[in-house]
Amino acid sequence: MKPKISDVAHAAGVSPTTVSRVLNNRGYISEDTKKKVYKAMDALNYIPNDLARSLYNKRSNIIGVIVPTTSNPFYGELAAKIEHHCAEKGLKVLLCNSLFNVEKERNYWEMLRRNQVDGVIVCTYNRGLIDYDDHHLPIVAFDHYLSKRIPVVSSTNYEGGVLATNHLVQTGCQKIVHINGPIDLETPANLRRKAYEDVMKKQGLPVLTYEIKPILKQEATAKAVAQIFDEQQDMDGVFASDDSIALAVIREARERGVLVPDNLKVIGYDGSEFVREIAPELTTIQQPINQMAETAVNHLLHQIEGTTPIPNQELVHHVLLRKGTSA
Amino acid sequence: MKPKISDVAHAAGVSPTTVSRVLNNRGYISEDTKKKVYKAMDALNYIPNDLARSLYNKRSNIIGVIVPTTSNPFYGELAAKIEHHCAEKGLKVLLCNSLFNVEKERNYWEMLRRNQVDGVIVCTYNRGLIDYDDHHLPIVAFDHYLSKRIPVVSSTNYEGGVLATNHLVQTGCQKIVHINGPIDLETPANLRRKAYEDVMKKQGLPVLTYEIKPILKQEATAKAVAQIFDEQQDMDGVFASDDSIALAVIREARERGVLVPDNLKVIGYDGSEFVREIAPELTTIQQPINQMAETAVNHLLHQIEGTTPIPNQELVHHVLLRKGTSA
Repeated sequence: MKPKISDVAHAAGVSPTTVSRVLNNRGYISEDTKKKVYKAMDALNYIPNDLARSLYNKRSNIIGVIVPTTSNPFYGELAAKIEHHCAEKGLKVLLCNSLFNVEKERNYWEMLRRNQVDGVIVCTYNRGLIDYDDHHLPIVAFDHYLSKRIPVVSSTNYEGGVLATNHLVQTGCQKIVHINGPIDLETPANLRRKAYEDVMKKQGLPVLTYEIKPILKQEATAKAVAQIFDEQQDMDGVFASDDSIALAVIREARERGVLVPDNLKVIGYDGSEFVREIAPELTTIQQPINQMAETAVNHLLHQIEGTTPIPNQELVHHVLLRKGTSA
Repeated sequence: MKPKISDVAHAAGVSPTTVSRVLNNRGYISEDTKKKVYKAMDALNYIPNDLARSLYNKRSNIIGVIVPTTSNPFYGELAAKIEHHCAEKGLKVLLCNSLFNVEKERNYWEMLRRNQVDGVIVCTYNRGLIDYDDHHLPIVAFDHYLSKRIPVVSSTNYEGGVLATNHLVQTGCQKIVHINGPIDLETPANLRRKAYEDVMKKQGLPVLTYEIKPILKQEATAKAVAQIFDEQQDMDGVFASDDSIALAVIREARERGVLVPDNLKVIGYDGSEFVREIAPELTTIQQPINQMAETAVNHLLHQIEGTTPIPNQELVHHVLLRKGTSA
């Protein structure tokens, strides 16, 4: 039979109220009493019911994390790091993969509110799915402005775009193509492209941008990349706004006998652990995923607990140029 | 002010008990009454408290999913697919990344039990972290035997090993090296290696196996692969027990001027969406990740709800050989 609080109290020789106060960490309890209660819990194999405690404390210690999909290693790593920092602080993570589907994401918001999560870290790029100012759910947005009251954790996307483009210019590229993913959403890729355009104009070089719509649709990406090679036969540099596109460019170059980096320099964006592992040759702009995850968790906790806020400038993390051999 | 059940009842012109029955889907309620209640909830922007309902129903509709890390796209995709099938059935997923750390995994088990999850899908390979037979938590294990009462969802690892090795033999390879990840844990990679050994012995070919310890440690993998190239200079085939290792082999071959597939045929294992996207040239044994995820969710629901079990043979899914140009 499952032991109850009264059994623990009996074994520890204290009142059930005392056990409850130990569990909820309320009021003054001597170390001695705490030890007795924990010892009794161990002996009886008593599992406290966190769910009941949540209702009592008005804290579920659960947060929601919305990402497009953990199938993509950038978001997979981000979710893993967020969860890691949450676990260290006693928070649990409800995982939500929106799969770029607005209706699915709207349902997640409803679900998260119904489940009384303590807060939400949102790493997708849709707006207006709930009235962010109408309720008091703590929210941290990732790389994306939602409303005045919601802090944004981001990395320096514009700086990353400048770093990438300047690197290609400085290594002698004259005809540099920029390829980005879908940009109709309000994604950080916008700023990377803007930076590319600004640098190219300043240098008096032609602005050549392409957009590849689908994500995780390999054939479409390969086909779109092949078309760019057909149309821009004398390009000598490519700045791709994510690593998957950069790797597709390197593959297409290989198939056409175009030497990387001799004839074509390629630079990507993101630098996730997995891509660094399987393609260390890729020069890329690396986002500090772990630090961004940690800042997001810390800032969410600040909102939940009403502690000192993190200064705004510390929400922005610097990217770095990670040199491989591809550019 | 936050609306209460009594406010909804008042607005709908019904009793609070009726509202509660609609929310919990209990007893007979006419469609008319339901409509009135939902309309009142909408008008008042009433958010039902799922947490309170969980306690009442003894169902949290939350399950735990333990994976090594979603940073690895195989587990990232698996977690995403499990969550997708859960969302379709009204279940939510608490994400747990064990990071190959036994102590961390043990803490997750405790946490999941304390949170009254309805069940756990465990995709890691440690045993004995809890006494699986001592309690009645519904559990489904992924590719890994835990105890008699716990069903295992798996793909045909031995068959996959045979498929891969036979493919290399049939395309003319004579000196085939097998490389696997850490095998001291009771991982499915064991069966893949066993199949390789059996086929090689049957063919009268030399058995050459290597083990690469760390996962997601790119430099160590690259170094270990380079050493294999040094030691086995005349190898003409490599069967790697995961795609990251296979991609490291292809990269090392490229650097040494060894032509793939002309001089060296390489075959991997897993075939996740992301690897298929960034390396469509890789011949690999593809695991049916989506079907395995769906079966795991269905079987967990069967245990939770006590419905008809899935026949044992349907828990095993067949892998397939996905031909690229690398072998």
